[in-house]
Amino acid sequence: MARAGEDALIARYFAPLSGPGAEGLRDDAASLTPSPGHDLVVTADAVVAGVHYFPDDPPGSIAIKALGVNLSDLAAKGASPRGFLLTLALPDDWTEAWLSAFAEGLGTASRHHACPLLGGDTVRSGGPALIGITAFGEVPAGCMVRRQTARAGDRLCVSGSIGDAALGLALRLSTVTTPDAVALDALRDRYLHPRPRLSLAPLLRRHARAAMDVSDGLVGDLTKMLAGTGLTAQIEAARVPLSSAARAVIGGDAGRLTIALTGGDDYEILCAVPPERLAAFLDEADQAGVRATEIGSVEPGEAPPRVLDASGAAMTFTAESFSHF
Amino acid sequence: MARAGEDALIARYFAPLSGPGAEGLRDDAASLTPSPGHDLVVTADAVVAGVHYFPDDPPGSIAIKALGVNLSDLAAKGASPRGFLLTLALPDDWTEAWLSAFAEGLGTASRHHACPLLGGDTVRSGGPALIGITAFGEVPAGCMVRRQTARAGDRLCVSGSIGDAALGLALRLSTVTTPDAVALDALRDRYLHPRPRLSLAPLLRRHARAAMDVSDGLVGDLTKMLAGTGLTAQIEAARVPLSSAARAVIGGDAGRLTIALTGGDDYEILCAVPPERLAAFLDEADQAGVRATEIGSVEPGEAPPRVLDASGAAMTFTAESFSHF
Repeated sequence: MARAGEDALIARYFAPLSGPGAEGLRDDAASLTPSPGHDLVVTADAVVAGVHYFPDDPPGSIAIKALGVNLSDLAAKGASPRGFLLTLALPDDWTEAWLSAFAEGLGTASRHHACPLLGGDTVRSGGPALIGITAFGEVPAGCMVRRQTARAGDRLCVSGSIGDAALGLALRLSTVTTPDAVALDALRDRYLHPRPRLSLAPLLRRHARAAMDVSDGLVGDLTKMLAGTGLTAQIEAARVPLSSAARAVIGGDAGRLTIALTGGDDYEILCAVPPERLAAFLDEADQAGVRATEIGSVEPGEAPPRVLDASGAAMTFTAESFSHF
Repeated sequence: MARAGEDALIARYFAPLSGPGAEGLRDDAASLTPSPGHDLVVTADAVVAGVHYFPDDPPGSIAIKALGVNLSDLAAKGASPRGFLLTLALPDDWTEAWLSAFAEGLGTASRHHACPLLGGDTVRSGGPALIGITAFGEVPAGCMVRRQTARAGDRLCVSGSIGDAALGLALRLSTVTTPDAVALDALRDRYLHPRPRLSLAPLLRRHARAAMDVSDGLVGDLTKMLAGTGLTAQIEAARVPLSSAARAVIGGDAGRLTIALTGGDDYEILCAVPPERLAAFLDEADQAGVRATEIGSVEPGEAPPRVLDASGAAMTFTAESFSHF
C-alpha cells in the first residue's frame, strides 16, 4: 500500500505518531492484542471536506475532529482507546503546510487520549479531502455498552451540554447571528473541536444499560436508540442541558432551540440508566469532571420519543436529526 | 454515525453481510476478540474511482478489489481473516443499482474468504467514490510475519504469477495491444479481480522470515522490503513466474517485460525463506494450490536490489514501482 511519495510523507509526518505494534509504520499491517480478559471494540467514521467540515478549517482542528468523532463512539461503548488507523485521501492541491499542521493536530489529540497511530493508507481522493479513521478500544470481556438495550423505566441522561456545535455551525453559516462575541467563540469552538467523553467510559460500563454518542442530533439519535425495541421515551426540553453560550444565543427563540435539540455534532453521550443507578451515575460523572443530566425516561410503546416543551405540550420537528448523506 | 437515508441503505444492502459482534450493524461499534492465544492483525487500504479503478468497472468487481487488496495484506502477514469495516464514500450521482451490485460483489467475496462485515460508515464523498476497508485478521501470538526481517542468504520467492494485472491495465488503457483475445481477457480479469493468497498464510508463518504483498510492482516492493536493513537482493528476470497470457503478450518486448516487473496490482506474495525451509515451503504451497517460485536471494549490502536479464546483465528501470499517489 505504500508508495514512493507516500513513504516519505509517512516517515516525516506520521511515523512520529505511531505506537507499539505499528512497526514504525514500515509494514502493511499492525498487530494489536486486547489486554487479557478484554474485548476489542472497533469503529470507523470518516469526515469529508465540504460535508463534515469546512475546507478552510484549521488543519489541526480537522484532525482533532476526525479522531474525536471516532473516540466519541468508543466512549459511548464504554471502551478505552488503544489505537487507530488513518485513511487519508488528499485532494490534488494538498500542500506540505496543510499536512504538517494536520499531523501536528492529530499528534496532539492522539497523545491527549493515549491513542497512538497504528497504520493506514494515503491516497489521492480525486476530489475533496477525506479523513477516514478506524479506532480501536477495549472493554472487559462482554462489557461493551450497547445501543438498543434500554428497558422501560430507565432514566435518560446526557453528558455535557447539547446543541453547542449545531448552533456553532449555524453561526458559522450566518443562518443564526448573535451580538455576543464570547458566545460566538465558544459555540464555534464546540463545532470545531469535539470533546469525546472518554472519562465516562468506565461509568457507562458500571451504570448504563444502553448508550450511544449524540452525533446526528439528540432527538434523532434518541429515536435510533429505541427504534424497533418496542420502547419509546419522553424527555423535557427544559431539562436538556444547555451551555451559557447556547442559552445566550437561543434566548426565547423556538427555532434556535430546535437547532440545539435536532442539530448534529454534539459528541455527547446519551444513555439509559436504571433508576437505582441514577444517583451513583450522576455523582460519579461529576467526580470524573463531566456533568451528566437526567432529561427524561424510557417507556413502553412504539411511537417516536416525545419532547415536551415548558408547557407540557409535545414539540414537533420537521427533521429529527442532521443528515450529511 | 448512522443517518436516516444511511440507515435504510445499511439495513437493505449491508446488514445481510454482517457477522458476529456486528450487532446487525445497528450499533456505532462492533466487538471483536481474537481467539485465545492469538493477536489481531489490522490493515487499512482504500481504493478511489479514477485512481485505483475505472469508474465504469462493474460495481461487484470494485467491491472484490477493495476487499481483496486488504485481504492480500493479511495473507502476507500470515493472518487468517476475521472481519472488516467498510467506509463507503459515495459520489452525488450514486444509484441504487450500483450500490446493489456493489453489495452483492462484496457479499460474495466476504463469504468466499469467511470475512464478515462488522460495521463502518457511509458518507457523501463530494467527488469520486472512495471505498475504504479496514481488515482484521489473526495470527498465533507473536507470529505476524514482518516485512523487514529478512536475512542474508534467504531465498526470495513469489506466489502465482507476476505482471498480469499491470499488463491488464496497459491493455485496458490501450498502451499495449494484443491480437490474443484469450490473453486479453485473462489479463484484464487479473487487473479487475485480485486473488488474495490466504491459503499461503499458515505456510508463511511456518517458513517465511519476512513477507509482504506485491501491490506496487515487484521491483519497487522488493526495494521496500530491504530498505534500511543493510541488505540487498539479486533476482533473475527469467525466473520471475509469468502466466501464459503474460508471456504471449510480452513476447520478446523488453518494455512489456518492464511493465510486468514494475507495474502494480499483482497482489501476490513476496517472501524471504531460509534456504533450509525452501523445499518445504515450495512443496506445501503447491499442496495449498498456489505455485510459489524462487526468483533470487537476499545478500548483504546497501545498494538497491539488482534484477539480472537473461545475459546476466543488471536491468535498469526508470520507475521501480507504480505510484497512485
